Amino acid sequence: MSLLVTGSIGIDTVEAPSGAVHETLGGSSIYFSYAASFFGPVQLVGVVGSDCPADFLKPLEDNPNIDLTGLEVRKGSKTFRWHGRYHEDVNQRDTVSVDLNVLAEAAPDIPDQFRDSQYVFLANTDPGLQLELLQQLDGPKLIVADTMDIWIRNHRGDLHKLTANLDGLVLNDSEARLMTGQPNIVLAGAQIAKSVRRFVVVKKGEHGCLLFADGKASAFPAWPSSDVVDPTGAGDSFAGAMMGYLAVADVSDTGSLHRAVAYGTVVASFTLEDFSLRKLYEISREDIDRRLAEFEELTSF
Amino acid sequence: MSLLVTGSIGIDTVEAPSGAVHETLGGSSIYFSYAASFFGPVQLVGVVGSDCPADFLKPLEDNPNIDLTGLEVRKGSKTFRWHGRYHEDVNQRDTVSVDLNVLAEAAPDIPDQFRDSQYVFLANTDPGLQLELLQQLDGPKLIVADTMDIWIRNHRGDLHKLTANLDGLVLNDSEARLMTGQPNIVLAGAQIAKSVRRFVVVKKGEHGCLLFADGKASAFPAWPSSDVVDPTGAGDSFAGAMMGYLAVADVSDTGSLHRAVAYGTVVASFTLEDFSLRKLYEISREDIDRRLAEFEELTSF
Repeated sequence: MSLLVTGSIGIDTVEAPSGAVHETLGGSSIYFSYAASFFGPVQLVGVVGSDCPADFLKPLEDNPNIDLTGLEVRKGSKTFRWHGRYHEDVNQRDTVSVDLNVLAEAAPDIPDQFRDSQYVFLANTDPGLQLELLQQLDGPKLIVADTMDIWIRNHRGDLHKLTANLDGLVLNDSEARLMTGQPNIVLAGAQIAKSVRRFVVVKKGEHGCLLFADGKASAFPAWPSSDVVDPTGAGDSFAGAMMGYLAVADVSDTGSLHRAVAYGTVVASFTLEDFSLRKLYEISREDIDRRLAEFEELTSF
Repeated sequence: MSLLVTGSIGIDTVEAPSGAVHETLGGSSIYFSYAASFFGPVQLVGVVGSDCPADFLKPLEDNPNIDLTGLEVRKGSKTFRWHGRYHEDVNQRDTVSVDLNVLAEAAPDIPDQFRDSQYVFLANTDPGLQLELLQQLDGPKLIVADTMDIWIRNHRGDLHKLTANLDGLVLNDSEARLMTGQPNIVLAGAQIAKSVRRFVVVKKGEHGCLLFADGKASAFPAWPSSDVVDPTGAGDSFAGAMMGYLAVADVSDTGSLHRAVAYGTVVASFTLEDFSLRKLYEISREDIDRRLAEFEELTSF
């Protein structure tokens, strides 16, 4: 079934212990789409400014599974920019600078031919904007969103309105604690799960994730990565693979959610092995399935 | 096969958000033995002082699988005491006071009839003492030890001598990082695994654990606990169940290590649901097997 993602497109600068990249492709909708494209077609809705280099999105243009009809190049606006610096322990990072630019303006329109998309992912942005995007859609089957600390802190009302309209929510463990005031992450996730229709995924970075669905908590470790170059976009790749799997299989029962989370884990583990989307450009669906089988073996008992 | 544990016996005082217990039974060898006793017989070697109340070890005396022949009541000495206080987030705790008492004296003798034990667990203590205890044993099949930050910091030489004589080592993630100076925990565990004969388990508390064996890293989540009362002894219960399973099955191949780690995870998840060993007194092997089956279902994909 059709899969649509709305989210950021960024010009990223990343410094990490193993090197650095300057003004490279990034943004939530980019990582999401590329990860989802291993499973099936994906429709990207996002905006860049007129400063965006002509060949910047070439890897996505060259990908037959990514439909860029919903890409808006907004004249006179500037593309979102982010500059991050990872610590020696790459689970820690500082934001050196962030320029919202076009992300602080109006959301893009969803093209008419995308409005009947059945699987929708609203990547992290102002929950008021996420609600506006939802209103442009024609009864999707499964709506999942991501959120983050600034919206939880400052836009709680809109966030509550949003979650009531969601099938699934994906967020970090610190965000789940912030949202509920509950230090036990299993209780926090279970509480948030009551505010959406179907499921919550609480991501814990190198510690894997928890899935809350059908009143139960399930736990998944991360792939044990010895080669972490740049974790940027790992969470968005996770969501892309998860939604890509669900949309193609056209399922959302709990067993399928488990499989989708495992695919998310595996694709995220590839993303962090190199800067930007470099590793994703190198791999195929076969590599993903091979690592999934290995992951299954490593975690079985 | 026979299983022997050496470790502390403590008079514990624990404060936690959900209550407190004063001068209750604790110590690594206590949690270990009780957890192991669900699987088969276990021989406990430890020392208390003459201040230890007469009925203090009654739950272990009443357990037909725990052999207390190796328990020494040392006249004129005082029992090890620990007082801990958990934060609102029970993954954090402060030590209010610790009195090593008899633990700062000579190690207990291992009774003659225990010296041919085939499976041995040396719970956390001075690695010099752990080496002395090893020398009293007659060629065990599988020797596993626990260690902690103070020995890594201050007794590195003895610790290296010890690990060269071990089949397995169990330690926390922060300790693995401290031991290697390596922030990536997968690299840290793999490096430590080279210093022992068979395997390393890196425990991550609420985030589960990593197992390093046969040049591979395997990852296991924790049981998703919504009811964490007192995490004291969870790590020792983990080790007890793990070793109890291996000793009874008389195996240590990688598949069995996976199963042993899963049993450790499940028994630890019971321990933290109440203060001291209270929850372990309530449960049976059937409860453990039921939760193991549920854990398998919750983590499968």
